[in-house]
Amino acid sequence: MLATMLYGPGDIRFEEVPEPRIEKPTDAIIRLAASCVCGSDLWPFRGLQPVTAPQAMGHEYCGVVVEVGSAVTSVKPGQFVVGSFCISDNTCPHCRHGFQSSCENIEFMRGAQAPLARVPLADGTLVATPGIPSEDLIPDLLAASDVLGTGWYAADAARVQPGSTVAVVGDGAVGLMAVLAAKQMGAARIIAMSGHKARQNLALDFGATDIVTERGEDGIAKIKELTRNVGADAVLECVGTDQSMKQAIYAARPGAMIGYVGVPHGVTFDGAQLFFAQRGLMGGPAPVRRFLPDLMDRVMSRQISPGKVFDLEIPLADVAEGYRAMDERRAIKTLLRV
Amino acid sequence: MLATMLYGPGDIRFEEVPEPRIEKPTDAIIRLAASCVCGSDLWPFRGLQPVTAPQAMGHEYCGVVVEVGSAVTSVKPGQFVVGSFCISDNTCPHCRHGFQSSCENIEFMRGAQAPLARVPLADGTLVATPGIPSEDLIPDLLAASDVLGTGWYAADAARVQPGSTVAVVGDGAVGLMAVLAAKQMGAARIIAMSGHKARQNLALDFGATDIVTERGEDGIAKIKELTRNVGADAVLECVGTDQSMKQAIYAARPGAMIGYVGVPHGVTFDGAQLFFAQRGLMGGPAPVRRFLPDLMDRVMSRQISPGKVFDLEIPLADVAEGYRAMDERRAIKTLLRV
Repeated sequence: MLATMLYGPGDIRFEEVPEPRIEKPTDAIIRLAASCVCGSDLWPFRGLQPVTAPQAMGHEYCGVVVEVGSAVTSVKPGQFVVGSFCISDNTCPHCRHGFQSSCENIEFMRGAQAPLARVPLADGTLVATPGIPSEDLIPDLLAASDVLGTGWYAADAARVQPGSTVAVVGDGAVGLMAVLAAKQMGAARIIAMSGHKARQNLALDFGATDIVTERGEDGIAKIKELTRNVGADAVLECVGTDQSMKQAIYAARPGAMIGYVGVPHGVTFDGAQLFFAQRGLMGGPAPVRRFLPDLMDRVMSRQISPGKVFDLEIPLADVAEGYRAMDERRAIKTLLRV
Repeated sequence: MLATMLYGPGDIRFEEVPEPRIEKPTDAIIRLAASCVCGSDLWPFRGLQPVTAPQAMGHEYCGVVVEVGSAVTSVKPGQFVVGSFCISDNTCPHCRHGFQSSCENIEFMRGAQAPLARVPLADGTLVATPGIPSEDLIPDLLAASDVLGTGWYAADAARVQPGSTVAVVGDGAVGLMAVLAAKQMGAARIIAMSGHKARQNLALDFGATDIVTERGEDGIAKIKELTRNVGADAVLECVGTDQSMKQAIYAARPGAMIGYVGVPHGVTFDGAQLFFAQRGLMGGPAPVRRFLPDLMDRVMSRQISPGKVFDLEIPLADVAEGYRAMDERRAIKTLLRV
């Protein structure tokens, strides 16, 4: 089959690779309904994360089960499934505690920018829909696999409460999903920080009530102004730079939690500063599996349309262009038709 | 009157100073029932915090109101009161949110190692007991002013749940109070980290179920061993060094919160490490005022005896010896009879 491989910075190839096979009795093989490019795929694409050997790319996925290993009991061929980018057994103490992204047997999904993919630990990782979903819901279900669950975790970790004021730092796909999550959790006011018109519009569509275009100190001052000098009740940090993290901390009110899901790059916290600021931090790789059944229900019942985050849709064969469009910020998120 | 002044490292003097007076209409003057020395008093005493001018020492207090300013309405002369080491108006948005230690009008109490003290913002800061408490409850009520409330906040910030496993890092007065707090909040297992026999015994008395004497990597390994390799559900950090903080983070299970109340000295967190460890942090100066009515009720009804943390009781005139005994770890906490 033809699939997506990264050979080095900027070097995405769509080339012939062997079809995936059942390797362990706990595996499943799925035929993807659609695939997509993740913001985190851009780190190695940009050379900011080393690539030592050609890598099979893609970790967001949904589709129909083709084959299962002999130990798999919870899904069967013909079912439509969604899984998390974190492969988990869903039975270890960390999984049972709701932190499947710290599973004792964690693996990270790969090779999903392809027509077929192997999903390890299928019983613990995959969730089936009731019946085959209608075609127009595919982008929404695909979003649930990573960006939606990650934005949701930001809101969960920041303990968004009904009626509260929430600030979202970052207008990428995850930031926009964090806006959607805050709205679903009943936030009364959602301040999206974005300087980009199309993303502002999408944020407003997902439930943002206010847009702050300023960054850094000016952005913090603006949020203080909007909150009568108090700060936000919860802040969702969806970038991962030192500047965005500081912005998140000081946009929050004392006692607030910052839910951070942007992988920190070059971020350090000074203990005494954090102590006297009295802001809390909770974050990490999102335990999407915890939220998946609920998120899939919300999609299937059309309560939410996270798939709107895909603003570029191209054939899988053009995957390299999908990376470039996101790298150049011409697209928020690229959907790949398989 | 004779009161306690710090002139420089190791230089505590008990000397004649003017009696406090009402300076603002929101002030109260109290006659102290007892006073004490705080672990944080040792920082300037040890020269680890600069002393530029003679400082009036003491920020933990309880006693009888002698006089109130014209604007004070909630307490009156003759009432017995306890207040927090953080002076707060208890009406600003941060106070109403339960973070009185981030009050817009915050001041820090001073001059309480004396027979009389001035308490600013008396209405927002002081809580009266129903009637005059019996003499034997004075140490318990005095503990509520700071160490008990601070240990309580560690447990609150770490979100200790009934039936959970809690680890406490630090066997000072605050760490011991954190053990008591975890017990009151229903923790099933409380692991106290201490290498000091008398403190271990007090920890057991306050509700600890396990003692870990090891520190650093060995201490973390021991906690993992005690928790079937999972880690503690919540960790209460009551020291504030880089080593103790790392111990706290890695003694916790993924998804757990670390409530940290030891003022961080030379502590930094690496963003990426914290992210992939997936542990949460919440801490700061304790909002004791939030907990005070409840803690005073528990003392008055003899549910808790936090005053046991005082293992040295001497006359106020001997205050310098009280500092030395704590500095040399001969005493956990010194009570000063006024």
